[in-house]
Amino acid sequence: MAKVIIIGGGFAGLNCAKHLANTEHDILLIDKTNHHLFQPLLYQVATAVLSPADIAVPIRDVFRNYPNVKVLMGDVKNIDKTNQKVILKSKKVFSFDYLVIATGAKHSYFGKNEWEPFAGGLKTISDALNIREKILIAFEKAERETDPKKRQKHLNFVVVGGGPTGVEMAGSIADIAYKNLIKDFRNFSSKEARIYLIEASDNILPMFDGELSTKARHYLAKFGVIVRTNERVLDITKQSVTTENDIIEADTIIWAAGNEASPLLKTLNTELDRQGRVLVKPDCSIKSHPNIFVIGDAAHFSINEIPLPGIAPVAIQQGKYVSKIIRKNKKIRPDFVYFDKGIMATIGKSKAIAQTGPFKLTGMIAWLAWSLIHLLYLIGYRTKVLVLIEWVISYIFNKKGPRLIY
Amino acid sequence: MAKVIIIGGGFAGLNCAKHLANTEHDILLIDKTNHHLFQPLLYQVATAVLSPADIAVPIRDVFRNYPNVKVLMGDVKNIDKTNQKVILKSKKVFSFDYLVIATGAKHSYFGKNEWEPFAGGLKTISDALNIREKILIAFEKAERETDPKKRQKHLNFVVVGGGPTGVEMAGSIADIAYKNLIKDFRNFSSKEARIYLIEASDNILPMFDGELSTKARHYLAKFGVIVRTNERVLDITKQSVTTENDIIEADTIIWAAGNEASPLLKTLNTELDRQGRVLVKPDCSIKSHPNIFVIGDAAHFSINEIPLPGIAPVAIQQGKYVSKIIRKNKKIRPDFVYFDKGIMATIGKSKAIAQTGPFKLTGMIAWLAWSLIHLLYLIGYRTKVLVLIEWVISYIFNKKGPRLIY
Repeated sequence: MAKVIIIGGGFAGLNCAKHLANTEHDILLIDKTNHHLFQPLLYQVATAVLSPADIAVPIRDVFRNYPNVKVLMGDVKNIDKTNQKVILKSKKVFSFDYLVIATGAKHSYFGKNEWEPFAGGLKTISDALNIREKILIAFEKAERETDPKKRQKHLNFVVVGGGPTGVEMAGSIADIAYKNLIKDFRNFSSKEARIYLIEASDNILPMFDGELSTKARHYLAKFGVIVRTNERVLDITKQSVTTENDIIEADTIIWAAGNEASPLLKTLNTELDRQGRVLVKPDCSIKSHPNIFVIGDAAHFSINEIPLPGIAPVAIQQGKYVSKIIRKNKKIRPDFVYFDKGIMATIGKSKAIAQTGPFKLTGMIAWLAWSLIHLLYLIGYRTKVLVLIEWVISYIFNKKGPRLIY
Repeated sequence: MAKVIIIGGGFAGLNCAKHLANTEHDILLIDKTNHHLFQPLLYQVATAVLSPADIAVPIRDVFRNYPNVKVLMGDVKNIDKTNQKVILKSKKVFSFDYLVIATGAKHSYFGKNEWEPFAGGLKTISDALNIREKILIAFEKAERETDPKKRQKHLNFVVVGGGPTGVEMAGSIADIAYKNLIKDFRNFSSKEARIYLIEASDNILPMFDGELSTKARHYLAKFGVIVRTNERVLDITKQSVTTENDIIEADTIIWAAGNEASPLLKTLNTELDRQGRVLVKPDCSIKSHPNIFVIGDAAHFSINEIPLPGIAPVAIQQGKYVSKIIRKNKKIRPDFVYFDKGIMATIGKSKAIAQTGPFKLTGMIAWLAWSLIHLLYLIGYRTKVLVLIEWVISYIFNKKGPRLIY
C-alpha cells in the first residue's frame, strides 16, 4: 500500500486518480478548486453558449464511491523532494511515497504582466465569466451610446493569439454579433461589431497542416472576423491594443497568446523549459526521483526533441500511464508512448478543421466530428445531456442561453 | 401613440411590457440587470440544483421580435412626476406619457444593515451564487478541520425567517447535507451538519392555513431541520447568531426574514407603507397621477385593509391589468381584481404544501403540483427543458449538478 499524492484535478490528474481508485493505495487528490473543468469547451462559457456547470463536475462527486481516494481543496505551496512531503499554503503537510504533479498551465504575458487586467485569458470558470460579462456589457454600452466613434470602441473585440482558443473565441464572438444579437438592439446594428484576431506569426493554428490553417482562416474571414497575421502586439492598455501597424480601441480585449506552467514547479529544483515546464524522463518522472512524476501541460515530454502538445489526449494518456506504474509499483518501466489520435479546432457555428495522420477533414463534417467527440469526452451523462440540449437549441434558434450580466 | 416607460423587468414589468408589445405605443423597459429572473426557483440556484441560466432569460431576447419595445440596462435615480420624466444615474433623461414602476423588493434588515455582510439575502443571481459558495466552502472547510468544535461551526447553517424562502432554503440545505454529500467526505460525516430555521413569530409559513404550516414544520423536522419559532434574533456577527435563547456559531447565515421596497419609490413623494411600498389606488395608479402606476412587490394594494401578498401571480395580473389601461388609453377604469389561484411552498426533496380556496394539498402530490406549475410558468422552452432535466437527474441520482466553487 503506497501513499500517492496527485496535485491537480485536470485531465492528467483526474485520469491518474481514476485508474488508482479501487486499489489498495491511498490516494490524495489536491486541487485549488472543487471541480474538474472540461477546458476544451470553456470558450463556450465565455461566449454564453454553455453554463459553467455544463462543463464542470465536482471532483468529490467523481470519487464518491471510492473510499481510497481523498479529495482536498487546497493550494500547494511547495514540494520537498528529499523528505517526500507536500506543503500547503495553510501549512498542512502531507507525506507521499509517490507524487504526481499535474498542475497544468496558466496564461503567460511574456513578461508583460501589466497587460493582464486589460486582456484576460481563458483558463478558469472565473476567467470565462469575466470575458462573458465584458462582451455582453460592451453591447449594452453600445445601445446606450449616441456618439458613433465611442460606440465603435464598444463594438470592437480584439483577440490576441491565433491558436485554437483564439480562433474559437473569435469565431464565437462573430456568431454573437452577426447572428444571435441581430434583432436585439434598437439604436445600432450588431453587424457594426468588428472582431480582430491578431497573430504574431505568419499563420493561425500553426500546429495544423498549412492547407487546413488556410482553410480555417478562410472560414473566419467568411464569418466576418478580421484576421491579421505577422502583426505583433506592442502594447495593451485599458481600452486599446497597439500593434506594429495599428492602434485598435476596444472595450474587450482577450488574451490567447501564450501559456506558462504553474510556478509551483520551480520549488522542485529540477530543469524547466522556457515555459516553465518540467523536462521529464521517458517514464514521466523527474531526474533522480523516480517516485515523482510530472504529467499533462506541466510537463515537457520530448519526442525527437519536439515536446508533446499541451492538449487533453496527452494529459489523459500520461495520467493512465503513470497510474499503471504506481499500481504495480514498477521498477522497470517501459517508456511512455503517445498515441496521436489527431487534432481539431472549431470555427464559429458549423465549421471545423481536423487532421489525424494523413487524413484531413474540414467544414460541416469536421464540425460534426468535433461536436460528437467533445460530447463523448465530457464526464458524466448529466453534462452530456445538458451540453447537447444547449447546442441543439443554440443551433436551431440562433440563440445563446446564458447571456446573463449579474 | 403613447410613450410608456416601465421600470423593472420582473414578473410585473415583463408582463406589462409583453402585453404592450406589437401595439402602436412606444415602450421603454429599464432594468438594472439584463435578465428576467424567475425568482421562485432562485433558492435552487443557491443550493446548487440549478444553474443561473436555467431560470433567467435576457430581457432583450423576450422582445427581440417587437420593434416597439426598447430595452435598456440602466439604473433609475429619480422620477419627476410633474414633468413626467425618468432620470437615470447616468444622467440620461427620458420622458413618458405613462410610467409603470415595477421595481420589486429587496431584503430588509429592520434597521440592522450591519448584519447584511454576514447574513446575505436571496434576491439576485449574485446573492444566490454567494450563498451557494458559502455552503459549499463550509463543507470543504469541515473536511480540512481536525478540531471537532471548529468543524461543527463549519457545519452549522442558520436560516433566519420562516417564510417560503426560509423554509425552502432550510429544506434544500438538509437535502445537501443528509442526502447529496453523504459519500463525498472522508474525514467527517455530512450528517453532522445542523440546519437551524429561526422564526420570531409562533409559526412558520404564517400565510398558510395553520394545519398546513404545522404539516410543513413536521416535514422539516423529518428532514432533520431544527425549527425554532417564537425566537427573535438579537444579533448577527461574522460567524454567529444570537437569539433570545441561544448563541449559534455558524459559517453560513442566510437572511430570509424581511423585505422592503426599492428606495427609488421615495422619490415619488407619495404615501408609502412601513415596508416602503407605495399605497396605490384601486387602478394601481398613484394619488393625483393617473398616468403613473406602481405594481408587483413595489405596490401596497389593499383589499379590505389587507395588502395583497408579494407573490408572482399578483405581479403578473397587475402587469396585464395596467397594460390594458394603457393600450386603450382608458379614462374610466374598472378596479383591479386579484384572482387568487392559491399559494404553495415546497419543503426539501418531494414534499410541499398548497392551498387554493378551501382545498389543501400536502406531501408528494403537492410537490408534484408545485413542480409542474413552476415548470409551466418558466419563460421559454429552453429553461423548461433544462430545469426538468436537472430535476430528474437530481431526483434520481441524489446529486446536485452545479456544485461549483470558483
